[in-house]
Amino acid sequence: MSNSADAARKIAEPSAHQAVRRVLDAVKSDKRTSLTAPEGKLVCDAYGIPVPKEGVAKSAAEAAKLATGMGFPVVMKIVSPDILHKTEAGGVVVGVNTAADAEKTYETILANAKKYKADAKIEGIQVQQMLAGGTEVIVGSITDGSFGKLVAFGLGGVLVEVLKDITFRLAPATRDDALSMLDGIQAHDMLKGVRGGDPVSREALADVIVKVSQLVSDFPEIVELDLNPVFATKKDAIAADVRIVVDFDYKPRPAPRPTEEIVTAMNRIMQPKGVAVIGASAEDGKIGNSVMKNLINGGYKGEIYPIHPKAAEILGYKAYKSVKDVPGVIDTAVFAIPAKFVAGALAECGEKKIPGAVLIPSGFAEAGAPELQAEIVEVGKKYNIRLMGPNIYGFYYTPANLCATFCTAYDVKGSAALSSQSGGIGMAIIGFSRSAKMGVSAIVGLGNKSDIDEDDLLAFFEQDPNTAIIAQHCEDLKDGRAFAEAAKRVSKKKPVVVLKAGRTSAGAKAASSHTGALAGNDKIYEDVFAQSGVIRARSLRQLLEFARGVPVLPTPKGENILIITGAGGSGVLLSDSVVDNGLSLMTMPPDLDAAFRKFIPPFGAAGNPVDITGGEPPITYVNTVKLGLSDERIHSLILGYWHTIVTPPMVFARNMVEVKKEMEAKGFVKPIVASLAGDVEVEEAAEYLYQNGIPAYAYSTELPVEVLGAKYKWARGAGLL
Amino acid sequence: MSNSADAARKIAEPSAHQAVRRVLDAVKSDKRTSLTAPEGKLVCDAYGIPVPKEGVAKSAAEAAKLATGMGFPVVMKIVSPDILHKTEAGGVVVGVNTAADAEKTYETILANAKKYKADAKIEGIQVQQMLAGGTEVIVGSITDGSFGKLVAFGLGGVLVEVLKDITFRLAPATRDDALSMLDGIQAHDMLKGVRGGDPVSREALADVIVKVSQLVSDFPEIVELDLNPVFATKKDAIAADVRIVVDFDYKPRPAPRPTEEIVTAMNRIMQPKGVAVIGASAEDGKIGNSVMKNLINGGYKGEIYPIHPKAAEILGYKAYKSVKDVPGVIDTAVFAIPAKFVAGALAECGEKKIPGAVLIPSGFAEAGAPELQAEIVEVGKKYNIRLMGPNIYGFYYTPANLCATFCTAYDVKGSAALSSQSGGIGMAIIGFSRSAKMGVSAIVGLGNKSDIDEDDLLAFFEQDPNTAIIAQHCEDLKDGRAFAEAAKRVSKKKPVVVLKAGRTSAGAKAASSHTGALAGNDKIYEDVFAQSGVIRARSLRQLLEFARGVPVLPTPKGENILIITGAGGSGVLLSDSVVDNGLSLMTMPPDLDAAFRKFIPPFGAAGNPVDITGGEPPITYVNTVKLGLSDERIHSLILGYWHTIVTPPMVFARNMVEVKKEMEAKGFVKPIVASLAGDVEVEEAAEYLYQNGIPAYAYSTELPVEVLGAKYKWARGAGLL
Repeated sequence: MSNSADAARKIAEPSAHQAVRRVLDAVKSDKRTSLTAPEGKLVCDAYGIPVPKEGVAKSAAEAAKLATGMGFPVVMKIVSPDILHKTEAGGVVVGVNTAADAEKTYETILANAKKYKADAKIEGIQVQQMLAGGTEVIVGSITDGSFGKLVAFGLGGVLVEVLKDITFRLAPATRDDALSMLDGIQAHDMLKGVRGGDPVSREALADVIVKVSQLVSDFPEIVELDLNPVFATKKDAIAADVRIVVDFDYKPRPAPRPTEEIVTAMNRIMQPKGVAVIGASAEDGKIGNSVMKNLINGGYKGEIYPIHPKAAEILGYKAYKSVKDVPGVIDTAVFAIPAKFVAGALAECGEKKIPGAVLIPSGFAEAGAPELQAEIVEVGKKYNIRLMGPNIYGFYYTPANLCATFCTAYDVKGSAALSSQSGGIGMAIIGFSRSAKMGVSAIVGLGNKSDIDEDDLLAFFEQDPNTAIIAQHCEDLKDGRAFAEAAKRVSKKKPVVVLKAGRTSAGAKAASSHTGALAGNDKIYEDVFAQSGVIRARSLRQLLEFARGVPVLPTPKGENILIITGAGGSGVLLSDSVVDNGLSLMTMPPDLDAAFRKFIPPFGAAGNPVDITGGEPPITYVNTVKLGLSDERIHSLILGYWHTIVTPPMVFARNMVEVKKEMEAKGFVKPIVASLAGDVEVEEAAEYLYQNGIPAYAYSTELPVEVLGAKYKWARGAGLL
Repeated sequence: MSNSADAARKIAEPSAHQAVRRVLDAVKSDKRTSLTAPEGKLVCDAYGIPVPKEGVAKSAAEAAKLATGMGFPVVMKIVSPDILHKTEAGGVVVGVNTAADAEKTYETILANAKKYKADAKIEGIQVQQMLAGGTEVIVGSITDGSFGKLVAFGLGGVLVEVLKDITFRLAPATRDDALSMLDGIQAHDMLKGVRGGDPVSREALADVIVKVSQLVSDFPEIVELDLNPVFATKKDAIAADVRIVVDFDYKPRPAPRPTEEIVTAMNRIMQPKGVAVIGASAEDGKIGNSVMKNLINGGYKGEIYPIHPKAAEILGYKAYKSVKDVPGVIDTAVFAIPAKFVAGALAECGEKKIPGAVLIPSGFAEAGAPELQAEIVEVGKKYNIRLMGPNIYGFYYTPANLCATFCTAYDVKGSAALSSQSGGIGMAIIGFSRSAKMGVSAIVGLGNKSDIDEDDLLAFFEQDPNTAIIAQHCEDLKDGRAFAEAAKRVSKKKPVVVLKAGRTSAGAKAASSHTGALAGNDKIYEDVFAQSGVIRARSLRQLLEFARGVPVLPTPKGENILIITGAGGSGVLLSDSVVDNGLSLMTMPPDLDAAFRKFIPPFGAAGNPVDITGGEPPITYVNTVKLGLSDERIHSLILGYWHTIVTPPMVFARNMVEVKKEMEAKGFVKPIVASLAGDVEVEEAAEYLYQNGIPAYAYSTELPVEVLGAKYKWARGAGLL
């Protein structure tokens, strides 16, 4: 029997691997797609996944003997490669209590099986130690088209079936991943023991999860695995039933490109020495004309080479018939020609050894011409040209004053790098950026993502000194695993915010008609994003506000948040927002409470929020905020301003900016956000505060706290808190 | 035995009432606070709430006889007024299977009970039909400080305990309320039967809920009731255990004022013939000066009477020493004097028979002076003066050009009536209204709510022809039941939107320090709001956007929503928002699909969203939107605009407004909302659309759908869909 503690050690041993391989080879030679229960047990044994004692009886007498040997009660189950759904076939009897019972049950199950499927090949009846007590959980694994191997965990029975209370991680999962799964289900309190029951052994459960995730990673042909139920008690976790489905044709995705290779190419594309515009035009309204103008007027300092079959010169630049005729180096070729001409021109780029093509044209997969897209992908591979698009607006990289796009120019430099899969969303990014005066390092259109996708951008922006935050809109992830691995690494250094469109089934359907991509189960995205340190934006506006606000805030040094408010009503709503965003209001220590009380009227409320009351002069805001910034126990401030004639909006704003600067000079650097309630003058005050490092919003008690919450999510994921 | 079907009829009979009264009288004379199991059974019997067959045995032999009579298995339980937690005391044994077992169990329980509490008075051992199978649910009732009697429903066991999956309604509940509770829990699918099990009888369960809710309404001294578990099967629902707690000192709230009385007073206060300003001042910066100026400059046409101890005239108006000296009628007295003088001046208002006082001054309950507040409440009651406040900014009623406030004047007339409990939030309402050009009928500050509260405003705005939507911010509801009853009535006619602050425990704590009010369990607010047809705003911005957008939209005639978009990416995000807001994307009929395809390029996508693609001229938007408006199967449109040079923002906006008008002239009136993706020019276009009846937002795919969702929520609650 294999329930011994040292079974775990087998994983590292080649013998474990060989044992599983032997089982799978047998299944393969039988041309089967699933394992029998005894085979499942062998696999579990090899990887040290605890299963009940068991044996297979070939006769009623043997069943009785086996059962007596392992102790009653036992469960008896049909063993047949032809019967996958054993319960349906009347092939499972639980609670067999005596030897006589076991004999009788043997015959019953056999009869049921024959009735269910007369020609079923029956290998015997499995007799199994019956597990009871403890908490029933499910550990499993699925194979996702984008993320590959995932391990799943949930509570057994109705909680998974009715409430879909299940959580996923990329396999292989670490012990920490596994432990986080135990807290990652809604009903996690069940594991702590309810109604006086024992808590489960977290270690034992995590161990099963880790081993399952290792097993499916080692054997990619295991496309589905279910341990259901696993009986989890305070001392162990034993899988009562094992179901394994295999697909010997399954091919894991090829490994993504090495990061270094991505970065080398992307560095040339984003900061080119020379740009060719294929399809450059002197004619207003043409895409090739807009691109030329944007390059020129955007202030790009490198070489610009218009490519045109006939023109000698376009907008003052010498034109060439082909990129091959250009004497200098070209790093980026922007395409503004019809889809059908792209492949030919791309091959010329290959011969010219241009590392990147920006494929603005539409008319590919999104327009029912996947063969055209396949063709350019082939050309790209042949010549090792990285392809951005097709079907995009192009890209902006402000540090190089580069507007390689046909959209309006944008030049407000800043540290946010944004990308969108959709052109419309790209235009919303540009409009919002301009309206909110948000500085950006880059805006990139990804469109059909025939080649360059979100993880390529992550790799580039990771090492780009001009980028402090990466915000991406996507409808699918073609290689979710490569994205997750890149995000996990990058988010340790810079916040990664993602708006995943097609969250809902209706959205996913729309996404699929839009891009031909099938959106995955949203819960998988949710969990993998969390596992990878990605901050998930819930709306387009949130993506934009996070891109704008998160880089403005310094990294907090701890979880203690204090609200200082002139409007008690704002204090209440801000407190709600604090909870909604997973933040913690500091419990006010008595000495600090007393210190705040010195500054506020007797009918104000200290505690947290500190309610300074509405009629106070600017000095009360100044004094309390200074105290909030200087006390080391407080890590972040949320300000609630109430417009009064005693403290008008701009007076408040200027005072707050001064206090912030003064305290920063003394070494007190903390995130501050503000909510402004008042007449329209508060809009100007909010903008002034924002431009001076305090994300501030008029008429909203939610947005400032959401931005602060995003900063905290990042800091926690990056291990800075 | 009482499980007969006609037991239900007993409710209406006086005998049922008498039977319960007899039980409660006995409990009262024993000075007990809870009922024994047999007493609980009598109460259930009287109201036709099914319970298992049972009897009380005084000896082991009697136990065996009783059990044999009702059939095995049985449950046996101690009966003692001194043992409330029977299980803890070892006083419950389940699954007693034979007469011999019953005899033995009798002795065991007796011994356990004596060990648990030697001096416990033991009245016997209850023998009860053992229920098994079916789904275990809980039906109960609690007594809430604000809402009074509530009936609760949830699934038994861990689902209620761990996941808090429970739902509430005001008692008495109707059959429809009860049925809605069965769908109102997260795990509602459990009731439909899982793993091949039977569905429960919805009728039988609803019947138990209705009867429990009637029982606690008839007998307010029943402050807690638990039927736990109730075994629900496909044919019946039987309560296996009854726990009833009583409080004979419990006093239900007095009935609220008759609506007619509220309306008569509020009509005078909101549209006064004359306004007195108590504490009027000629000195700039004084509150009494600001109020005078706002009344005068706001354009109020009635009489204005400054009240001042010495002045003969203030700002050109004859001043009086007391309201009693004023010759004409005063309907509204605005107070701008210190707290300590309010009671005296209020008494004079009483003598002058002024129906309403607007109490701007602070310094009452919110500032640690509850006795001052109690005093003015007494004066108000004595003279039947309705009190607004204290501790408020006053109120605006634009149809009367009335700014009875010290804040900035506001005069954009419209149909939204807003109120806030907090002054700061009131200022945010004013600022947002001005910034968004939102027309309002009224903005009212409620502050400490010593008298006038949300339900008084509901009664007034219900019959106010100038008001089309009522939006309220509140931190607590002093009389939740009166509010719910008013909202239920009013929301049938006009949308009622509420932002309940203090949703979270942190928020509730802040609310409590702010107003002295204890916020209730948020789930109760959630459920009662839904039961009353209230649209719940999740954020301050949402409250404001709903107030602005919902009245702009016509009432939809059905649930079929169509998205027409130029940006495929917006279509995906809009689809997500549709699901998030509980709306339904229409399934496109083939003929309609074909009709749309005629207008869009071959690579566009019909279906829903209709993706007209980004490069299209204005006529494509016009044609598809016309079709969307004219086809009767489509009930609402969501537009996704993508800024291009072919269709610039204002061209799109003007075209859409024209199409809307043209189709309205032909009788096609449908809600239309729009999401605009593009450069900053889309902001102007959004504003133009909004001002012309199409709520539109730049850079957001969520806000337009949230507004449409709010309209639908209202229409469904009002029975219009």
